[in-house]
Amino acid sequence: MKNVKLAVIYYSSTGTNYQLAQWAEQAGKDAGAAEVKLLKIAETAPKEAIAENKDWKAHLEATKDVPEVSLKDLEWADAVIFSAPTRYGNLPSQVAAFFDTTGGLWFTGKLANKVVSGMTSAQNLHGGQETTLLSLYKTMHHWGAIVAAPGYTDEVLFAAGGNPYGVSVAAGKENLPDKVRKAVVHQTERTLQLAGWIKSGNTQK
Amino acid sequence: MKNVKLAVIYYSSTGTNYQLAQWAEQAGKDAGAAEVKLLKIAETAPKEAIAENKDWKAHLEATKDVPEVSLKDLEWADAVIFSAPTRYGNLPSQVAAFFDTTGGLWFTGKLANKVVSGMTSAQNLHGGQETTLLSLYKTMHHWGAIVAAPGYTDEVLFAAGGNPYGVSVAAGKENLPDKVRKAVVHQTERTLQLAGWIKSGNTQK
Amino acid sequence: MKNVKLAVIYYSSTGTNYQLAQWAEQAGKDAGAAEVKLLKIAETAPKEAIAENKDWKAHLEATKDVPEVSLKDLEWADAVIFSAPTRYGNLPSQVAAFFDTTGGLWFTGKLANKVVSGMTSAQNLHGGQETTLLSLYKTMHHWGAIVAAPGYTDEVLFAAGGNPYGVSVAAGKENLPDKVRKAVVHQTERTLQLAGWIKSGNTQK
Amino acid sequence: MKNVKLAVIYYSSTGTNYQLAQWAEQAGKDAGAAEVKLLKIAETAPKEAIAENKDWKAHLEATKDVPEVSLKDLEWADAVIFSAPTRYGNLPSQVAAFFDTTGGLWFTGKLANKVVSGMTSAQNLHGGQETTLLSLYKTMHHWGAIVAAPGYTDEVLFAAGGNPYGVSVAAGKENLPDKVRKAVVHQTERTLQLAGWIKSGNTQK
Repeated sequence: MKNVKLAVIYYSSTGTNYQLAQWAEQAGKDAGAAEVKLLKIAETAPKEAIAENKDWKAHLEATKDVPEVSLKDLEWADAVIFSAPTRYGNLPSQVAAFFDTTGGLWFTGKLANKVVSGMTSAQNLHGGQETTLLSLYKTMHHWGAIVAAPGYTDEVLFAAGGNPYGVSVAAGKENLPDKVRKAVVHQTERTLQLAGWIKSGNTQK
Repeated sequence: MKNVKLAVIYYSSTGTNYQLAQWAEQAGKDAGAAEVKLLKIAETAPKEAIAENKDWKAHLEATKDVPEVSLKDLEWADAVIFSAPTRYGNLPSQVAAFFDTTGGLWFTGKLANKVVSGMTSAQNLHGGQETTLLSLYKTMHHWGAIVAAPGYTDEVLFAAGGNPYGVSVAAGKENLPDKVRKAVVHQTERTLQLAGWIKSGNTQK
Repeated sequence: MKNVKLAVIYYSSTGTNYQLAQWAEQAGKDAGAAEVKLLKIAETAPKEAIAENKDWKAHLEATKDVPEVSLKDLEWADAVIFSAPTRYGNLPSQVAAFFDTTGGLWFTGKLANKVVSGMTSAQNLHGGQETTLLSLYKTMHHWGAIVAAPGYTDEVLFAAGGNPYGVSVAAGKENLPDKVRKAVVHQTERTLQLAGWIKSGNTQK
Repeated sequence: MKNVKLAVIYYSSTGTNYQLAQWAEQAGKDAGAAEVKLLKIAETAPKEAIAENKDWKAHLEATKDVPEVSLKDLEWADAVIFSAPTRYGNLPSQVAAFFDTTGGLWFTGKLANKVVSGMTSAQNLHGGQETTLLSLYKTMHHWGAIVAAPGYTDEVLFAAGGNPYGVSVAAGKENLPDKVRKAVVHQTERTLQLAGWIKSGNTQK
């Protein structure tokens, strides 16, 4: 996986998915990926909505220096790990807005064969943790990306909730437990490993 | 169904879903709904993106007088027919952005028991016509809405492609055929009828 | 809802969904449904597979007197609550086998307008609790049934895991907690209430 | 892809998916896969049901010599192409019954990292062509398989309906057109290529 360029692309309003994304970033570096970028999806919510929510406003301020993802980043990446909360079982509009700008890359085949996996959060225990990831994977199928959901490929996944579609949590005020971090590390390593194999093959052809 | 307030809520970039929505509006009026509102979801795409697409720009201009849907409209409605194109098997970010503002209504139970169904379009024949409607219905389940997909409840549905999740078309430059209009009429009448029964029951309890 | 005939149709291999179904049956009776039937879906697994699993074999024996669901039962019901475990995010083959026999009813429109909701279980916390119910609802859309997922229409749902698509549990050896039973009661009452309104409307038309 | 063992696993009641599977088999051989097996999923429907349907009975007889897929075949394969018709937007019970027997392989990690894609058919134009493939991919995610849907990775896919989740057709009496065959060839080659890269990587590690 030393040949793999990894983009960890996240949207977070109050920090949960930023935490998951940071863990994936660290795991990517620890695993020896060629390059790892932690990239946030631009906030598109109205300023008034954000102003009414203290935690949201604080998180936006706290992460103002995290670079925003661009289409160039997406084209650059061999592997992508997405992390975003649910919105009624679907992806947040911020993520959708970013995806809606990728038509040019899609049309010219630049999104095919990237290896992808996703992570998510919801307020309730079963508030869209599964269904949101499947919405992500629908878009990935349209892109011609290669979906490498973790399944049950490592023991650490069971302890973290056993979501075969990707790491997921119930969001709240508390810090996420270390067992979740371990699952993120596994998912990241797996995504990188598959991307490395595919990139090697694709280069040698 | 004479007691039912129907909102036809659509997003359209170049007119296909506007056409579907207009047919649903007309069908609602013809069926004798108490009140019918045709409402567009606000455009949230960057101006530069729209400027680059002649058809998109023209449609935006042509529909500038169609009222934008508000949260009050959503609260007001007994029945809702949504119409929106696919974006990679999911809903457009414009629709997601609107749904993301409904948290207050959701939290206070104002979205429960509305009777809903959806319509959609894609560029390809199988470009998300089915999966986009199921993404819509996920959100509806979270709302506690009552999903009244048409299934195969009328002969006219077969001629229009037989999409049991809702009327769908392959978008293009051509006018949509009348067999699609007939399917929209049936779906609208069915949605209204179910909403009428539920409203009558809910009022008498 | 005193006019509603309710079928609680379940498949269970070791008892979890039988418990959920029994709670729904009791809730239906307590709510004053016209008639309530608890019906099991026939076992279709090879005898050798069952023989190798002590719990499965014991459950099959313990429930041998529960009547097997027939097509007549399905036609008879105004409301149906399904309960079945996940199999890799999809419905068990036993349930699929039953659904595969319903073509005649479907073709003659006998499955339309039934009000339905579902319950499920998985071994892991996020092992298909959400996605299995959405597979059920796909079939229901094809039937023209009316999907009345609970959403977040009552406080008791949050305590039971907050699965908006239907009550769900992580199956195991332990007894299911009472908070799950309360969620089942709510889901059953909601399904009955909607079915009652729809039946009243449908009869008066 | 010369190192790849490909299993084309299908269920067909009247021949459409058998045709798709035969095309995939041929494409696999033409592409130089190490070995290609065409395997049918065992019929589990009641004999009376089959007896009532002349076409079903004839197809069963006509394919009696096609080997039935076993768990050993599944373990053996590096790449799998599945083909099966829809049943109300979900997989047929025959396929589900086969998947329900894979618990032992799953539990011991033998299903992970296989590269998979799917094909399907429905009677209507939009009768589950998209949603059935997503049900298949749910199971694949649980297995830890690598989902390589075709997306829009070749021009031939557009002509065949542009289903990004996999080749799909509206089943009927007519022969399937050659444009569908071309899409099957592309999907097969793509699945093989990705599987070849992953196998090479996995072997060298």
